[in-house]
Amino acid sequence: MSLSLNQWTTRQWSLPEAVDGCVRHGLEAIGLWREKVAETGLARSVRLVRDAGLRVSSLCRGGFLTAGGLPGEEGRTAFAQALEENRRAIDEAAELSADCLVLVVGGLPGVRPGEALPAAGFTRDLAGARERVAEALAELAPYAGERGVKLALEPLHPIYCPDRAVISTLGQALDLSLPFPEEQVGVVVDTFHVWWDPRLFEDVARAGLRIASYQVCDYLHPLPEDVLLGRGMMGDGVIDFRPITAAVRAAGYTGDVEVEIFNADVWAADPDEVVATMKARYEQVVLA
Amino acid sequence: MSLSLNQWTTRQWSLPEAVDGCVRHGLEAIGLWREKVAETGLARSVRLVRDAGLRVSSLCRGGFLTAGGLPGEEGRTAFAQALEENRRAIDEAAELSADCLVLVVGGLPGVRPGEALPAAGFTRDLAGARERVAEALAELAPYAGERGVKLALEPLHPIYCPDRAVISTLGQALDLSLPFPEEQVGVVVDTFHVWWDPRLFEDVARAGLRIASYQVCDYLHPLPEDVLLGRGMMGDGVIDFRPITAAVRAAGYTGDVEVEIFNADVWAADPDEVVATMKARYEQVVLA
Repeated sequence: MSLSLNQWTTRQWSLPEAVDGCVRHGLEAIGLWREKVAETGLARSVRLVRDAGLRVSSLCRGGFLTAGGLPGEEGRTAFAQALEENRRAIDEAAELSADCLVLVVGGLPGVRPGEALPAAGFTRDLAGARERVAEALAELAPYAGERGVKLALEPLHPIYCPDRAVISTLGQALDLSLPFPEEQVGVVVDTFHVWWDPRLFEDVARAGLRIASYQVCDYLHPLPEDVLLGRGMMGDGVIDFRPITAAVRAAGYTGDVEVEIFNADVWAADPDEVVATMKARYEQVVLA
Repeated sequence: MSLSLNQWTTRQWSLPEAVDGCVRHGLEAIGLWREKVAETGLARSVRLVRDAGLRVSSLCRGGFLTAGGLPGEEGRTAFAQALEENRRAIDEAAELSADCLVLVVGGLPGVRPGEALPAAGFTRDLAGARERVAEALAELAPYAGERGVKLALEPLHPIYCPDRAVISTLGQALDLSLPFPEEQVGVVVDTFHVWWDPRLFEDVARAGLRIASYQVCDYLHPLPEDVLLGRGMMGDGVIDFRPITAAVRAAGYTGDVEVEIFNADVWAADPDEVVATMKARYEQVVLA
């Protein structure tokens, strides 16, 4: 397993700066974000990572597929738009030769991240939202397959179930992936999201080669006010990484290990120091 | 199923006031907290609920059984103290003829609720902490059984895994209960904690008569800064109660439905209005 920098960890850096940073620190892979790719331009981004000899361990992110659960025309339009947007993300992942396109599947239809519940225009139908994800996958998986892109379903910590992901466990992501060929749909194991799951080790083993991405960062305690930023540098929180890494390896995963940290202090720090710390902590607390 | 007021929902009220409130609003049951019972005195509390003709649907709470996972003497002392404290809670539940004693099992050994991680004196050994819970149950279940008390294991939302409960799913609580007779160890289904679980309906059915308590309150969005207070009046959040209530009923549960809300606004409101709202919402959004 080789260390990869998810570029959101050094958010200050543009894509060219992040590519340079990876090379300077001897990393072989980078995880890209669509926003950053758009800023630099797709063609130039492709050239930069290729010229630097970097693997693209993932492209973040597609998803937000559940709005189709809204009633009537609104739902139909939202579903069509989500599919269209995801096809664009798949095309970009293909251009970048990304190992996978990460999908954050979306929350309850009509519930917006971080915003108060609307008086109308949202639904509490959790089971229905999960069915919308399965439907969207059936549309997108063949499209991805034709372009050599693997979709990677990311279960998010249950705290994000209302607004970001109705897929909350690795087992659930895995079950949703099984109807599709392994090279079309896989799952993400992100320690922050799944460390608490009593079925984690069983489901990592069951996932086997469906594991499309292994991402690490720590779970801080207590969480900050904005729970989206509760991700910490490995060793700064409560997660015991070694047994999880060992299980992912035993399942057959040989890909890159991406470090993706959303944290106000990490974002404010000097990116070169962040990468240096990340490398040291990876050796000290993540490797099994 | 009959509605019960968990007295923490009307936290301003003393135990005598809460008992009066239940009678005034025509409720047949009340969920008590040990702190409030201690304030009023155990004998007087027993007399008050008996004279009012109320059932005690639960006593909150025992638990915090994981500190025994600390190394050496510190762990042994912490484990012995936790068992002693839980035996006292069982004795109180017996005196009050409570339907069950709710157990919040505790988080990672040495991690304190709401406090920064200590530099030393805590462990990330989640699997070990879960084993401590099983060990403690083996000590406590027979003691409870002799006194006619049922221990009710409460899975808490995974957000509380570091500091309050290493039991995060109903399935996990259920598995921990199975080695013991049904009348000694059961589980709590609390909508706030389990609504997101993709295996919820399967595990409610599997729990059957192990369900010792059904508690309802809503999951607010977005959560407030102090996530402990993210519980809302039914109808104010994202939970679809009816299918969960129907599943609990289909599993064979015929007990009381307790409303337990931790919420700064609810606590600041007039308790009589809170109980009136609770009754109305129970009819409107909870009953299947």
